[in-house]
Amino acid sequence: MRKRGSEELQGKTVTARHKMPAGFGPSALKSYLDERLARVNAYLDGCLPEESRTPETLHRAMRYSLFSGGKRIRPVLVIAGAEAVGGKSDQVLGLAAALELIHTYTLIHDDLPALDNDDYRRGRLTCHKVFGEAVALLAGDALLTKAFELLSNPKEFPSVPPERLLDVAGQIARTAGSTCLVGGQVVDLESEGKQVDLPLLEYIHVNKTGGLIVTSVTAGARLCGAEQQSLRALARYGECIGLVFQITDDLLDVIGDRETLGKNTGGDRVRGKATYPAVLGISESRSRAGELTGMAIDHLAAFDERADPLRALALFLHDRDR
Amino acid sequence: MRKRGSEELQGKTVTARHKMPAGFGPSALKSYLDERLARVNAYLDGCLPEESRTPETLHRAMRYSLFSGGKRIRPVLVIAGAEAVGGKSDQVLGLAAALELIHTYTLIHDDLPALDNDDYRRGRLTCHKVFGEAVALLAGDALLTKAFELLSNPKEFPSVPPERLLDVAGQIARTAGSTCLVGGQVVDLESEGKQVDLPLLEYIHVNKTGGLIVTSVTAGARLCGAEQQSLRALARYGECIGLVFQITDDLLDVIGDRETLGKNTGGDRVRGKATYPAVLGISESRSRAGELTGMAIDHLAAFDERADPLRALALFLHDRDR
Repeated sequence: MRKRGSEELQGKTVTARHKMPAGFGPSALKSYLDERLARVNAYLDGCLPEESRTPETLHRAMRYSLFSGGKRIRPVLVIAGAEAVGGKSDQVLGLAAALELIHTYTLIHDDLPALDNDDYRRGRLTCHKVFGEAVALLAGDALLTKAFELLSNPKEFPSVPPERLLDVAGQIARTAGSTCLVGGQVVDLESEGKQVDLPLLEYIHVNKTGGLIVTSVTAGARLCGAEQQSLRALARYGECIGLVFQITDDLLDVIGDRETLGKNTGGDRVRGKATYPAVLGISESRSRAGELTGMAIDHLAAFDERADPLRALALFLHDRDR
Repeated sequence: MRKRGSEELQGKTVTARHKMPAGFGPSALKSYLDERLARVNAYLDGCLPEESRTPETLHRAMRYSLFSGGKRIRPVLVIAGAEAVGGKSDQVLGLAAALELIHTYTLIHDDLPALDNDDYRRGRLTCHKVFGEAVALLAGDALLTKAFELLSNPKEFPSVPPERLLDVAGQIARTAGSTCLVGGQVVDLESEGKQVDLPLLEYIHVNKTGGLIVTSVTAGARLCGAEQQSLRALARYGECIGLVFQITDDLLDVIGDRETLGKNTGGDRVRGKATYPAVLGISESRSRAGELTGMAIDHLAAFDERADPLRALALFLHDRDR
């Protein structure tokens, strides 16, 4: 159900009560992100085989795509979700890394000629343009597999009961599988060049990108032993920001800056992709993103200041320009 | 080290003491295989989403490749390995299914135009020839992911302690990853059209196909709580039959029957693939396969008659014509 306050949300405006949390403004968020991202990157660097390991081409390709300036939104959400329920980032680094590995594999496969056929991502040549299609495809396969290797290793999660680790790994596998992430991807491909209505558009994005975002927000908290009520609230928050993330992505493809984005704009339209601006128009898409951002923050009402990073992240994702 | 008995092994002959185990001849093996395969197939059918589930194309593609007359060697090895240490097939069906899902994903991706570009497998059009490259690629991704979904689900393994399930899942992920299966695949691709010596050839096959076969033989036993000594013996057995399997594969590509195989022969030579006949010649390849089959059976010396299916399988893999 769409919930709407007394004031109509316009453009990028979010209601006043949804402004940055007191004491957690943009500079606090920046420090927060810098510190968490440094840990995630160090962890990812440590968990992947060195480039010098046989086969070198494969390991270079895996690292090329994994360390190509990604925003690391999913790992940050894992950590912020865990912290919101009193967990520590060190407890969930393996999980944060696993979700980034899965995300990276989907990007490599999406960019392949058989799918989106993209030459650039984040201002750099895509994996298959550098390493060839065969190695890129296999690098994606290996990154996905590596994610589940991490999630099967109790040494990466010393204080977590093994049955809870299995539970979280299962949640991730279901989210990444044929009835969610991969399924959303297939429906997205099948919808290219066709008339798409809002329910179908939301189906695509809830599955293709939303699922992994919801799982990122909840899985860290789940690993730290959060209760069902907290997990439900975090899932609702995740659903909202997942859609905001996609709407913003679609808007940036229409009105974003090529230099800032590091890729060509207008690609969705050329491909006849189902997008929010195409279905709702630019103005209504913006307004929906603002509304969903407010709803996301509302879902965190029962959480204390330890959820401030999640609140700030919702606004950050709404306002991003790349 | 190569071990050789007093008599030189010739052609397809294996030494007399390596003949079918008493009381477990070809007809007993056939009944054994029929019964186990029926269970594995029923389990696989039950664990995959129905074809009518959205997206239908994806689920049809997954099922098309999974139920295309595969020999199910890996699931049978899982079950036979478990039974050799006193386990029951029902305890390891989820594991047997997971290994077949992984095997099937590798076949779909290998057949893609970016890799081997094969139009036929087992006498049927390959997945991408029927469903297109994009859906085939994504069906492979989804099958790999489904394998880890099964391996994260304690309900599929009711009598297994969760830490043991994690241990087995980790072993499978390492085997399927960049330093084994996917790595072997990349080295294989990079070796096409080049002069390959025996050590490199064995590196490719130990990693590309051997690893998953060793893991199949040991993982079922491990899941049933086998001791280290038994697991080591089963691993040695698996290493030997893994190489036999590959040598036979290579030989069949040279001297096999197209109708029986369900695919064109001679493809390895056209592609300049590293193969045993190319490196050792046909006669020496046959002799090596016979020798390794004998060694495989020798490694089972400490097991009782519950390992007879493994013994019979070694001979079966050596003598197969498809």
